[in-house]
Amino acid sequence: MTRKPLTIALAQLNFHVGGLTENTDRILAAASRARDELKADLIVFPELALTGYPPEDLLFRPAFLADTDKQIQRLLEAIDGIAVVVGAPEFDQGRLYNSALVVAEGRMIARYRKRHLPNYGVFDEARYFQAGDSPMVFDCQGYRLGLTVCEDIWQEGLIAEIQGLGAEMILTLNASPFHAGKIHQREHIVCRQAKAAGLPLVYVNLIGGQDELVFDGASFVTDAQGEVVFRAPEFEENLAAVSFDQGKPLAGALSPLYREVSSEYQALILGIRDYVNKNGFRGVLLGLSGGIDSALVLALAVDALGADNVRAVLMPSRYTSEMSIEDAKAQAEAMGAAYDIIGIEPAVEAFAAMLKPVLADAKGGVTSENIQARCRGIILMALSNQWGKLLLTTGNKSEMSVGYATLYGDMAGGFAPIKDVPKLLVYQLARYRNGLSSVIPERVLTRPPTAELAPDQFDQDSLPPYEILDPILERYVERDQSAEEIIAQGFAADVVRRVITLVDRNEYKRRQSPPCIRITERAFGRDRRYPITSGYRDETC
Amino acid sequence: MTRKPLTIALAQLNFHVGGLTENTDRILAAASRARDELKADLIVFPELALTGYPPEDLLFRPAFLADTDKQIQRLLEAIDGIAVVVGAPEFDQGRLYNSALVVAEGRMIARYRKRHLPNYGVFDEARYFQAGDSPMVFDCQGYRLGLTVCEDIWQEGLIAEIQGLGAEMILTLNASPFHAGKIHQREHIVCRQAKAAGLPLVYVNLIGGQDELVFDGASFVTDAQGEVVFRAPEFEENLAAVSFDQGKPLAGALSPLYREVSSEYQALILGIRDYVNKNGFRGVLLGLSGGIDSALVLALAVDALGADNVRAVLMPSRYTSEMSIEDAKAQAEAMGAAYDIIGIEPAVEAFAAMLKPVLADAKGGVTSENIQARCRGIILMALSNQWGKLLLTTGNKSEMSVGYATLYGDMAGGFAPIKDVPKLLVYQLARYRNGLSSVIPERVLTRPPTAELAPDQFDQDSLPPYEILDPILERYVERDQSAEEIIAQGFAADVVRRVITLVDRNEYKRRQSPPCIRITERAFGRDRRYPITSGYRDETC
Repeated sequence: MTRKPLTIALAQLNFHVGGLTENTDRILAAASRARDELKADLIVFPELALTGYPPEDLLFRPAFLADTDKQIQRLLEAIDGIAVVVGAPEFDQGRLYNSALVVAEGRMIARYRKRHLPNYGVFDEARYFQAGDSPMVFDCQGYRLGLTVCEDIWQEGLIAEIQGLGAEMILTLNASPFHAGKIHQREHIVCRQAKAAGLPLVYVNLIGGQDELVFDGASFVTDAQGEVVFRAPEFEENLAAVSFDQGKPLAGALSPLYREVSSEYQALILGIRDYVNKNGFRGVLLGLSGGIDSALVLALAVDALGADNVRAVLMPSRYTSEMSIEDAKAQAEAMGAAYDIIGIEPAVEAFAAMLKPVLADAKGGVTSENIQARCRGIILMALSNQWGKLLLTTGNKSEMSVGYATLYGDMAGGFAPIKDVPKLLVYQLARYRNGLSSVIPERVLTRPPTAELAPDQFDQDSLPPYEILDPILERYVERDQSAEEIIAQGFAADVVRRVITLVDRNEYKRRQSPPCIRITERAFGRDRRYPITSGYRDETC
Repeated sequence: MTRKPLTIALAQLNFHVGGLTENTDRILAAASRARDELKADLIVFPELALTGYPPEDLLFRPAFLADTDKQIQRLLEAIDGIAVVVGAPEFDQGRLYNSALVVAEGRMIARYRKRHLPNYGVFDEARYFQAGDSPMVFDCQGYRLGLTVCEDIWQEGLIAEIQGLGAEMILTLNASPFHAGKIHQREHIVCRQAKAAGLPLVYVNLIGGQDELVFDGASFVTDAQGEVVFRAPEFEENLAAVSFDQGKPLAGALSPLYREVSSEYQALILGIRDYVNKNGFRGVLLGLSGGIDSALVLALAVDALGADNVRAVLMPSRYTSEMSIEDAKAQAEAMGAAYDIIGIEPAVEAFAAMLKPVLADAKGGVTSENIQARCRGIILMALSNQWGKLLLTTGNKSEMSVGYATLYGDMAGGFAPIKDVPKLLVYQLARYRNGLSSVIPERVLTRPPTAELAPDQFDQDSLPPYEILDPILERYVERDQSAEEIIAQGFAADVVRRVITLVDRNEYKRRQSPPCIRITERAFGRDRRYPITSGYRDETC
């Protein structure tokens, strides 16, 4: 039997969590474009495209589910001349499913209910959904197509079941979030599954930022040998089609795979842009200290939003060096961002005088350093209130891990772009950015890190060098290793113990920190749920 | 066959999450006391007593599980002359179970794996555990005893399975958190199950505060007719025994059931006491404004920790009335708490001058109100840093719902005791407390609520009266009702819409707020997981 080639469009689009009407508008527009411009027979959207991912507890609202159903009805009425596979929550007899709906010719011709619900890491799907219990295959232009949703394709045995129903190829709808290197892992697993089954596979991923998560796209098609024959770009919307001749995919564009540092940089830009725009802010502001962290955040913000939408604020104190002011100004100017200078001394002195009667015996130290940081927080929040701009915090993951940050001070802000970026990666990203065009003064990259909250203060007075700290943190926070295991890898026992104690003790600070953009395998936030109140001490610690 | 009566001890104890060694010490001490003083044959501990509940992501650490196993070994070696049923995580062949272990005569004579894992509300058990797949019954002194763990007993059909194995009574290990009225619901379900099966049942619950949760105890025994014959008190540790003669429980003490307002008050006290003590703080401090919210928090703190461990700080501004200062002083004195007075004007003026060049066109309003609140935050945090005392915030649930609070200002603090207490309940609790002994000046209870951040400002200028606001919030936040449903109950449409918009818009503030004590059916925190970035608007809104 000779069949017409089947053309499948991959709709790698950016949806808005909860934006049911606008998401449906996008689905309909993409379906029309795929039909008219790409001559596609079928278009595949990501997992839960209709609601955005993850909708979280909105799924508990009956009105939200009713509104979702109304939009599904809109799809049924409006789709014409193309088959559409779209991810949506499906409420049936008191149970909610994470489904792939197949709509064609004014009706729902098939539906598949996700069978494996991830409930680890950032995922809470068992909180909302019931697992489906059967495989599903549908017909399109004489081809038998099997469906899976995200986590399903990572499981063994599931494709064999679909194949048992006669599937000739697999479509998979995904909302697979980014972390460094994830795309390699993802393609490796999926291509192995395709090869084992001897079936071609169409993998459609979401793109866009949603609170802590960035979905990176990089949708792809693999042939029956598990070779990738088409790959959409990372971090941007893409609507493309691949034709299958007698079930064999014809090669298409091949966007490059994940590239270290540049992919992280793109993820951070997309995360900032979507948080700002989807929440309707009129741009951002940040405190620019002359140090590397705020330098990187400024560069990211300008690259994400354009210089016109970014304002920097320099807030020197008696401990701020001339070098810091010069470098901060130079950087703002190089990036074309407006900046203001507001010295904090009058407020710091006012607090010192006000607190003197009560804290007669105060020794300065942390109390006084925190007051400085919090005066800056007040200034930045006042400007944020007045300008309607989102305040970005500039703290990195190394600081957030050990609590080297002031709650309500430098931690004040609505979004924390580099909270999941370890300090050493901050340097790499800054160098990467300077490689595109020089915007961060070289001195910012080479001077020893300092919080400038006390005379001649350097990070390394209170913390181990970042070359030691970062690898310990990765092992303890991201890989759950014990003190004993980390020490066995050659790290000094006293340093390891001190770092672990600091991480444990600062859970309360992290609990009140703004959301970040997840770029590692385990970010602080939904991804890592620790009790604040805990009597646990690693016995080897 | 005539058997000796079986005496079962109910160990309603307060465990420390992660405190593996101290928890095991407590288990051993209670087992010895039950054997020697209560002449018990068997002692039953709560769910996950060994680790405390909930251990959250500590369960992902291999070292934590290994340390847990070491403590289980200690139990096996040390327990003598009594059988012990204790809740603990059990790692077996790469899978983790939420188990009830039965230890006697130096060995583990039985183990049961929880079959129904709650993954809703505050619970994330599917994140950690594998569900068990079979019922279990063990022998003790010639009696056949069936086991269940918490959620199991809320399910239908499970007791019948246990009965099928010959169980004559059911033991259930629990970590069932408090909310108002929960104990009625709990006893109703459990007694119905006992009656349906015609089996007596021993229900042992945890007590104590753990971050957002308070476990209220109120362990009980029901006979085969579903009548409660013994009940331990709420909110305190209790070790008691009930004898079963030929399987029929002999009546014991019957502590009273949940009493409205007084139970909430006790829950709040226990929550504060455990958060402060388990985290090792040297007492607490709070800002005392002369208003009802901080008045209640002061009373709760003094009742929880003793007046010596509580310090109040009055921070008047130009908008603070004489009445507020007088009432705050009177209250601190009535409760015997030390207080300091630190006016905020110098700092407020310093910020006004510093910001003037940048905010030349500032209209005051929210920006200026927030600066005042944040100056107070800085003062309180400086004192917290210096004294090593935990700062309590004083905001209530009504404010937190609609964002009537300043991030980093009055929201600054490590713990938010009344964040889950709606404003009307704040009044009820204050009146209840004054009924015990008069500590809150009557004027505080009767004056119109005001934030005193602007001249002649009252809450009701910006918010609907609390008599309207609180019921709308309960329907929208706790019961997931739509605008349409709420309006249909007789609330003004424009008010409902405004309230809903405020709730939706302020998710970002709540995300950075300190943990509270959950006393309603849905608290802000782990219990309610909303996206910050959300395009959802209730269509009926």
